[in-house]
Amino acid sequence: MSYFKNISKIQYEGAGSTNPLAFKHYNENEVVLGKSMKEHLRFAVAYWHTFTMNGSDPFGQGNMIRPWETVSGLDLAKERVEVNFEFLEKLGAPYYCFHDVDVAPEGATLKESNQNLDVIVAKLKEGMKSTGVKLLWNTANMFSNPRYVHGAATTSNADVFAYAAAQVKKGLETAVELGAENYVFWGGREGYESLLNTDMGLELDNLARFFQMAIDYAKEIGFKGQFLIEPKPKEPTKHQYDFDAATTIAFLQKYNLQDHFKLNLEANHATLAGHTFEHELRVARINNMLGSIDANQGDMLLGWDTDEFPTDLYSVTLAMYEILENGGIGSGGVNFDAKVRRSSFEPEDLFYAHIAGMDTFAKGLKVAAKMKEEKFIDGLLEERYSSFKSGIGADILSGKANFKSLEVYALEHSDIRNKSNHLELVKARLNEYIFGTK
Amino acid sequence: MSYFKNISKIQYEGAGSTNPLAFKHYNENEVVLGKSMKEHLRFAVAYWHTFTMNGSDPFGQGNMIRPWETVSGLDLAKERVEVNFEFLEKLGAPYYCFHDVDVAPEGATLKESNQNLDVIVAKLKEGMKSTGVKLLWNTANMFSNPRYVHGAATTSNADVFAYAAAQVKKGLETAVELGAENYVFWGGREGYESLLNTDMGLELDNLARFFQMAIDYAKEIGFKGQFLIEPKPKEPTKHQYDFDAATTIAFLQKYNLQDHFKLNLEANHATLAGHTFEHELRVARINNMLGSIDANQGDMLLGWDTDEFPTDLYSVTLAMYEILENGGIGSGGVNFDAKVRRSSFEPEDLFYAHIAGMDTFAKGLKVAAKMKEEKFIDGLLEERYSSFKSGIGADILSGKANFKSLEVYALEHSDIRNKSNHLELVKARLNEYIFGTK
Amino acid sequence: MSYFKNISKIQYEGAGSTNPLAFKHYNENEVVLGKSMKEHLRFAVAYWHTFTMNGSDPFGQGNMIRPWETVSGLDLAKERVEVNFEFLEKLGAPYYCFHDVDVAPEGATLKESNQNLDVIVAKLKEGMKSTGVKLLWNTANMFSNPRYVHGAATTSNADVFAYAAAQVKKGLETAVELGAENYVFWGGREGYESLLNTDMGLELDNLARFFQMAIDYAKEIGFKGQFLIEPKPKEPTKHQYDFDAATTIAFLQKYNLQDHFKLNLEANHATLAGHTFEHELRVARINNMLGSIDANQGDMLLGWDTDEFPTDLYSVTLAMYEILENGGIGSGGVNFDAKVRRSSFEPEDLFYAHIAGMDTFAKGLKVAAKMKEEKFIDGLLEERYSSFKSGIGADILSGKANFKSLEVYALEHSDIRNKSNHLELVKARLNEYIFGTK
Amino acid sequence: MSYFKNISKIQYEGAGSTNPLAFKHYNENEVVLGKSMKEHLRFAVAYWHTFTMNGSDPFGQGNMIRPWETVSGLDLAKERVEVNFEFLEKLGAPYYCFHDVDVAPEGATLKESNQNLDVIVAKLKEGMKSTGVKLLWNTANMFSNPRYVHGAATTSNADVFAYAAAQVKKGLETAVELGAENYVFWGGREGYESLLNTDMGLELDNLARFFQMAIDYAKEIGFKGQFLIEPKPKEPTKHQYDFDAATTIAFLQKYNLQDHFKLNLEANHATLAGHTFEHELRVARINNMLGSIDANQGDMLLGWDTDEFPTDLYSVTLAMYEILENGGIGSGGVNFDAKVRRSSFEPEDLFYAHIAGMDTFAKGLKVAAKMKEEKFIDGLLEERYSSFKSGIGADILSGKANFKSLEVYALEHSDIRNKSNHLELVKARLNEYIFGTK
Ligand SMILES: [Co+2]
Ligand SMILES: [Co+2]
Ligand SMILES: [Co+2]
Ligand SMILES: [Co+2]
Ligand SMILES: [Co+2]
Ligand SMILES: [Co+2]
Ligand SMILES: [Co+2]
Ligand SMILES: [Co+2]
Repeated sequence: MSYFKNISKIQYEGAGSTNPLAFKHYNENEVVLGKSMKEHLRFAVAYWHTFTMNGSDPFGQGNMIRPWETVSGLDLAKERVEVNFEFLEKLGAPYYCFHDVDVAPEGATLKESNQNLDVIVAKLKEGMKSTGVKLLWNTANMFSNPRYVHGAATTSNADVFAYAAAQVKKGLETAVELGAENYVFWGGREGYESLLNTDMGLELDNLARFFQMAIDYAKEIGFKGQFLIEPKPKEPTKHQYDFDAATTIAFLQKYNLQDHFKLNLEANHATLAGHTFEHELRVARINNMLGSIDANQGDMLLGWDTDEFPTDLYSVTLAMYEILENGGIGSGGVNFDAKVRRSSFEPEDLFYAHIAGMDTFAKGLKVAAKMKEEKFIDGLLEERYSSFKSGIGADILSGKANFKSLEVYALEHSDIRNKSNHLELVKARLNEYIFGTK
Repeated sequence: MSYFKNISKIQYEGAGSTNPLAFKHYNENEVVLGKSMKEHLRFAVAYWHTFTMNGSDPFGQGNMIRPWETVSGLDLAKERVEVNFEFLEKLGAPYYCFHDVDVAPEGATLKESNQNLDVIVAKLKEGMKSTGVKLLWNTANMFSNPRYVHGAATTSNADVFAYAAAQVKKGLETAVELGAENYVFWGGREGYESLLNTDMGLELDNLARFFQMAIDYAKEIGFKGQFLIEPKPKEPTKHQYDFDAATTIAFLQKYNLQDHFKLNLEANHATLAGHTFEHELRVARINNMLGSIDANQGDMLLGWDTDEFPTDLYSVTLAMYEILENGGIGSGGVNFDAKVRRSSFEPEDLFYAHIAGMDTFAKGLKVAAKMKEEKFIDGLLEERYSSFKSGIGADILSGKANFKSLEVYALEHSDIRNKSNHLELVKARLNEYIFGTK
Repeated sequence: MSYFKNISKIQYEGAGSTNPLAFKHYNENEVVLGKSMKEHLRFAVAYWHTFTMNGSDPFGQGNMIRPWETVSGLDLAKERVEVNFEFLEKLGAPYYCFHDVDVAPEGATLKESNQNLDVIVAKLKEGMKSTGVKLLWNTANMFSNPRYVHGAATTSNADVFAYAAAQVKKGLETAVELGAENYVFWGGREGYESLLNTDMGLELDNLARFFQMAIDYAKEIGFKGQFLIEPKPKEPTKHQYDFDAATTIAFLQKYNLQDHFKLNLEANHATLAGHTFEHELRVARINNMLGSIDANQGDMLLGWDTDEFPTDLYSVTLAMYEILENGGIGSGGVNFDAKVRRSSFEPEDLFYAHIAGMDTFAKGLKVAAKMKEEKFIDGLLEERYSSFKSGIGADILSGKANFKSLEVYALEHSDIRNKSNHLELVKARLNEYIFGTK
Repeated sequence: MSYFKNISKIQYEGAGSTNPLAFKHYNENEVVLGKSMKEHLRFAVAYWHTFTMNGSDPFGQGNMIRPWETVSGLDLAKERVEVNFEFLEKLGAPYYCFHDVDVAPEGATLKESNQNLDVIVAKLKEGMKSTGVKLLWNTANMFSNPRYVHGAATTSNADVFAYAAAQVKKGLETAVELGAENYVFWGGREGYESLLNTDMGLELDNLARFFQMAIDYAKEIGFKGQFLIEPKPKEPTKHQYDFDAATTIAFLQKYNLQDHFKLNLEANHATLAGHTFEHELRVARINNMLGSIDANQGDMLLGWDTDEFPTDLYSVTLAMYEILENGGIGSGGVNFDAKVRRSSFEPEDLFYAHIAGMDTFAKGLKVAAKMKEEKFIDGLLEERYSSFKSGIGADILSGKANFKSLEVYALEHSDIRNKSNHLELVKARLNEYIFGTK
């Protein structure tokens, strides 16, 4: 049955359209820098926010109107599979993402949970086959169940570590079964509530052990997808070990795991960590660790993860610029880890919100592409760092210089001349790119 | 001549004293856990905040009453050397720290600056000899002069890189000359104002090149002190590359520099990065990177580096606990990178403020020592992580377990039992340690 | 039946005690500044956090072990009444506080909800009579139910305004029935998610209308308790109209409501608004608006309302100082609007946590009392503002001076001498009060 | 002489232009909603940031290249007057603003300072006459000089209060002499560093006394301009009394001063207080207190006042929408209280930056005007609040309803139906306004 009866496939109608159920900028087959928008953006819908999130918040009950919530348990899980594919097809998004517990209810035992998953995974596989929709990534939710109150891989309870291992084992098998292009780790409870009773050294060692086991098992079962870690600094924990891109990279380097992972970067997690989204993307890019993105936005005046649909064209343009500079997002994609506001509780809002996000990213892609084609930023860099192309600058880069030779140089060149960056002009030019790109 | 005529050597008078110019807790020869307080704490006075800071802020002119500010240039620099030793002796602090430009005025050329330094370093050496005071660390100020507007080692201007190299070269020579126990790098302008015109990859490569040159030169001249990097997330730059402990460690690992550096961690820099001070110390400790501390405190409701004298006993106790667990601070120390409030503009305030900080650290040391002796935290950890001592937990730690064996275990043990952490009780017990330690 | 069988009445054992189920500082009959601790502190237990909160958070399911959660609906509500009185008696707290929906389940209709309330209120009345426990305040929860998604008194839907009015009407009747000493308004959804679709002028006018109706109805039914408004800046809304004390006072003044209300100030709400707790108390005090407090603490590095039990003695001491300076808390009290951490999920933790909070407040009271007795702060103020006691200062205060007379004076006295505040010394002295008070 | 020789009058060249020294959107005579852009925007240049700011920050020395800085004292002050008018004429900004100390150097005595001012004010008057440029507002700097270390009107030193009074007296005379359309109070040091030694009640009473004296004197000398207070929450003080719009309004109401003042709202001050700029404007608007704006923007990830030139079109559009809804900015204007980044240190950057800001505001005005013409927001509000137009909603607004009648209604209408706000659709539509407005 259809749950969005009054909604047909969303069409591209162009910038003039006032149809709330049409794209104004996302035209999937439009070619930008030699690739279709669809290939560039690889949009994915997040199962949790779209099909299971009920609108509750710490001060309020669920309020979302979701016509499929008439049954429960495994029956509801099956309905949601139908909803998923109907939604994806009507929206025209090529991918989806899920946690295990989003798609299938937990049972009374691990065994029962796995059996529930088997039923649903079969149904998802069928739906993927018939619709052509693909799985960008799946993951295991190791933070909601009370067993994970002290962490999963970083728990203080060895039984919980074992349970988490079993859960990820099943997750990797699911990934293979559904051809997931990536597998994600977000450590919502991998961190601490208080340092007073936390053995941080042991917990991080255990996290590394856990990851190594996952690598080993993936190899064993032939999972070829990319492993991704999603940093977040805090919430629900007071401190989360994968605080930001740099912290996660430090961890991976320490345990010699860096070749097996890339990062799944979320805009709202970046800002909670005190960074812009483009900063986190840049850090990942220069470390060859940019794997995928969770597209959303936070409210800079609120201190929690609001997971809003991304509509800020400044942020999205600069994010797309980093992705273009990275040579694309690889096997990753643009996953809307975003939820409609609690006051947007009608089913149509799911479409309005995704259209808003997809149009913003489409426009951001076009602006970033124009910036790249016209060498806006490349030109700035080339001029700014030109002193490293020759002379003493080239000596520094080539390894010829040392403190003694540089002192000799400096004693002769101690009257330094710098050039203004003209940052206000640069920002004005960025505005013209944003507002002037069709 | 004496600049603090009305002040004699500060004495320990114990907790009952109401003498503002006496220690209530710092009793340098009192033995705690087998070492004197003096050896534990290795207090240092910061030359810049104590002898050159004039009270100006972005909205106000200098207002500090400093009787020695009657001359200028090299003459003033010489006066400050006298003030430094008088202050250190009366306070009873065994160490001091400085930036090159704190002690000697910059000249019109690098050569002249170096000559000025030579004059003052000779005078400092003499003072150290006669007083027994030692140099905890020195550093080069590569952020105040306009030449560093775009950075020093991460500048876009190769001439500036050369100048910075020459400046650190001189700094290392100074360190050798004065027997500095450490040499510090704080990259106040090593970061960016805008990502739009920043080649982050090149800048970080250059930073690594710079550090390698410093290592090479230190070896060449026989500098045996510890290299320290001081992280800070921002201010004056919008983003500073040495954002926090983890980020700095990631950088050092990437460029294979980690064996040559430890961290100098500042409390206010920790909180600006979104961390507690003890968190930063813990991260450093478990990575064997804890080198020294800049003792101060921020205002958690203000978004800039207030560099207040440390008086919060919660923070200081937990900091001292990390240091004790680290086996001490090594060649580092407790440097008061702290400034009197602008409204505390009289010379006596310099004493009041240092006494406040030293007493807080002394008391924090005693509380932390008691916590350690009574195994307050060790006991919590032992109980909490006991499941890793045997059975499946031991298998996980020893490498015997893998996802398959853990799944077998989990299928049989899926009814997980966790224990409460009783965190509120733990905090109440911490209060009793803090208020109950004599 | 008893739900805390292994716990007897909590006794005062004094500072040396290591009994986790004993008070170390709260000795209810101990007299401080002429009043018993019990009278000073007027402790209250919050029904919601203590008896209904289940440990869920935005990323996790409920996990609290609550032995009474074996039934549901009205039966569960009745059990909780029993638990409430057992807990209060064993803890020795003289007051409790509740929202309507904490004590009785909402029915399918307003009528049914009110009937449920009637059943429970009768039972509460009985329990109060038999135990001597009193109701500090009650309130209506107008934020959890989906009907309040757009606000209650500030809703965009007039039917919701009517429903909210009916709910508060019942709340006032309940207050009369149970002899509540205050009635609280916390406007969790009185604010906006986006300014784009918000008629702020109309919404605030409606809020004032709502309050006036409450005043009128309270008068009509003879409710003599104090009306209290509890400010909070945000969460769950993006902006809450009662942002902080000053904003709430501005609102009350504008609508001429200030004589009918005082403020219920919460520590964690203060810090979320960018203020210290003592700041909010001071603002209320100098406006004669200090009504009651919600005792808890936030985590200064987290951007949401963590509602932790208060253990920070700095904050609590300064809060108690404001209360003492206010001449006491009047008909208000110290209500623990605080919840155990999710990892403190055992029933005993409810006792540990309240003991931690009560001991901290008891010690804070003693410290503040000593500061007051010894005129620590009064002495500072007297000296600091002494120039207003005579001469030009007295003329300014008395209204004799004007710009012209002051200019005449200033032209003759333009060489200004200020005195240092010695703030570091003041903070050191505060530490000695905190650590030196028995 | 000319200090910007290579720069001619900035021309409007339209959106396609790549000339960095041309307007792309600001076309002063273009009519929008019946008024010229010039009349709508009333742009003003801030003397301090543009002509006296030298680029120093807490970690760096001044670095701005300002060709007029070849002389000093009164001679420099005279040069700056020339620079001011040349700059204003070339930029085409009709207004400027200044603090007393921006335009004339402080002398050794108040008398000498006033004499210096007299010299410069005469020169400014002459320049205004010959160029047609007008003074939007002037103000007295009562925060930079050490005498104001403890505040000005809220100082603890009565002599300082007198001095401040004399300074504002002169400021009002200057305002009359130059025909200032407004007079501004920004209380940079009116607040506290620590509550421990602050008599907040006395200080606020004194602030009110000071304002009343200003009102009286303005009346006496016939100053007809608007008094404006500029809120800021902190920096340089830990807490500033005029925290935000609501706090300032509370203060004015308490002392019955509200009819004599409006607010000068700054974007960066809004965000430092935890508000959006449009929020502060809205609060002022519905209280009839919107007087003028300080146009700039902060960095949401930095905790200090960065005073960047405004280029964020989202913020500026919503600000201009509030101004249009207010019926214009009255006697106020759009003053660029903004400074070029320290790395934009060349004189041309002053033009680039102002052009960036003026173009952003011009475009924001056009977008806001289109939103208003098409009733984008009015339409949303009309639909959303329609239930208050008739029936029970109308009864609520008219005062007919009370708790009893509303309960009767609610008992019959307890099955509430709310409508979704479709906020994501609203934001997508806002994007189309921003990007689709020519
Ligand atoms: Co995410
Ligand atoms: Co998120
Ligand atoms: Co430091
Ligand atoms: Co600092
Ligand atoms: Co509360
Ligand atoms: Co709260
Ligand atoms: Co301003
Ligand atoms: Co500002």
